[in-house]
Amino acid sequence: MNAEKIPDIIVGRLPVYLRALQRMADKGLKTTSSQELGDQVGISAAQIRKDISQFGEFGKQGTGYSIEFLTERLRSILKVDRIWDVVVVGAGDMGHALSNYQGFADRGFHVVAIFDNKKEKVGSKIGEFTIEDTETMVERIKSMGVKIAMLTVPATAAQDVAKKLVQAGVRAILNYAPITLNVPNNVKVQYIDPSTHLQRMTFYL
Amino acid sequence: MNAEKIPDIIVGRLPVYLRALQRMADKGLKTTSSQELGDQVGISAAQIRKDISQFGEFGKQGTGYSIEFLTERLRSILKVDRIWDVVVVGAGDMGHALSNYQGFADRGFHVVAIFDNKKEKVGSKIGEFTIEDTETMVERIKSMGVKIAMLTVPATAAQDVAKKLVQAGVRAILNYAPITLNVPNNVKVQYIDPSTHLQRMTFYL
Repeated sequence: MNAEKIPDIIVGRLPVYLRALQRMADKGLKTTSSQELGDQVGISAAQIRKDISQFGEFGKQGTGYSIEFLTERLRSILKVDRIWDVVVVGAGDMGHALSNYQGFADRGFHVVAIFDNKKEKVGSKIGEFTIEDTETMVERIKSMGVKIAMLTVPATAAQDVAKKLVQAGVRAILNYAPITLNVPNNVKVQYIDPSTHLQRMTFYL
Repeated sequence: MNAEKIPDIIVGRLPVYLRALQRMADKGLKTTSSQELGDQVGISAAQIRKDISQFGEFGKQGTGYSIEFLTERLRSILKVDRIWDVVVVGAGDMGHALSNYQGFADRGFHVVAIFDNKKEKVGSKIGEFTIEDTETMVERIKSMGVKIAMLTVPATAAQDVAKKLVQAGVRAILNYAPITLNVPNNVKVQYIDPSTHLQRMTFYL
């Protein structure tokens, strides 16, 4: 497998397959088919077979895929067969929600710190975390070696914070602020924006 | 334009184009090109031209697209040239964040009610909203004629709540719970899940 050659659009579908497979495993299922997986995620069976074949030979004609084996391979390909430390920047409602989110542990992620620039918030607790000052953020992230950040600050502050995160060595930003970030080419940004998801559905209403 | 014939994968990109165009308009820009738009959203210029051409003739060779005109057309195609009422189910951290989210108003959405099943939460306030009981949810949604819901309840409750939402006439669900929902074919579901977005980036780290 040569990661450089895999189109980004396929990479984007792999976590969706992985989530569906983990769900099947939770239900006690052992094997699945491209048809069944496709029905779960809303992608054609042919597309799924094509995507998965990019990474080698899985499954056999007629017997389908071993859920455990395919899960392991996808976790390895996506590099979530380890735990990544993640920081949260912005201790508003969304920062609170992410700090307390139960869905990271078994998906490869662990929140290690949360930052805010409001002096009245710094030092107070969110669950097990003490909110830290963004003034010391760059040093703290560098010292922890964290590569992933979730950005939940207001849109007006997001670009400035993103620049600091890049300085600190962050290479992947999950951006909740409703703006497009300018970052160097070696930094990945993903946008989470409920309006965009809602707009995808209103088309069909 | 025949909406039935447009592949879902293209529909999914249109809100992303719309967000980028609105961003450009906010900066005072009047025209753009498929190249510039592509750089903003990380999609090839050729793909963008192909996607947009599905809906008719926009822009001229060499002069690019009028941002205002293309924005209006995309808003019309996606049916967000009007305001859709939306309910939030689940008054936890994420429900709070969504009820207070500032990014809906200019994107076509308006939160009108929030529900929770915890008796100690019902009747208390989130900003301008009074949390309502999920027991009266089906009737309330029917009487308001709401077609869109955001689901932020725990995974264990999500399928049950989704069933009630469908009974109430909801046809689009934005699901924050980390499970796959089973709904009839005429109901759309979009999943918002930070782990899936993070996993898409770890591939490149």
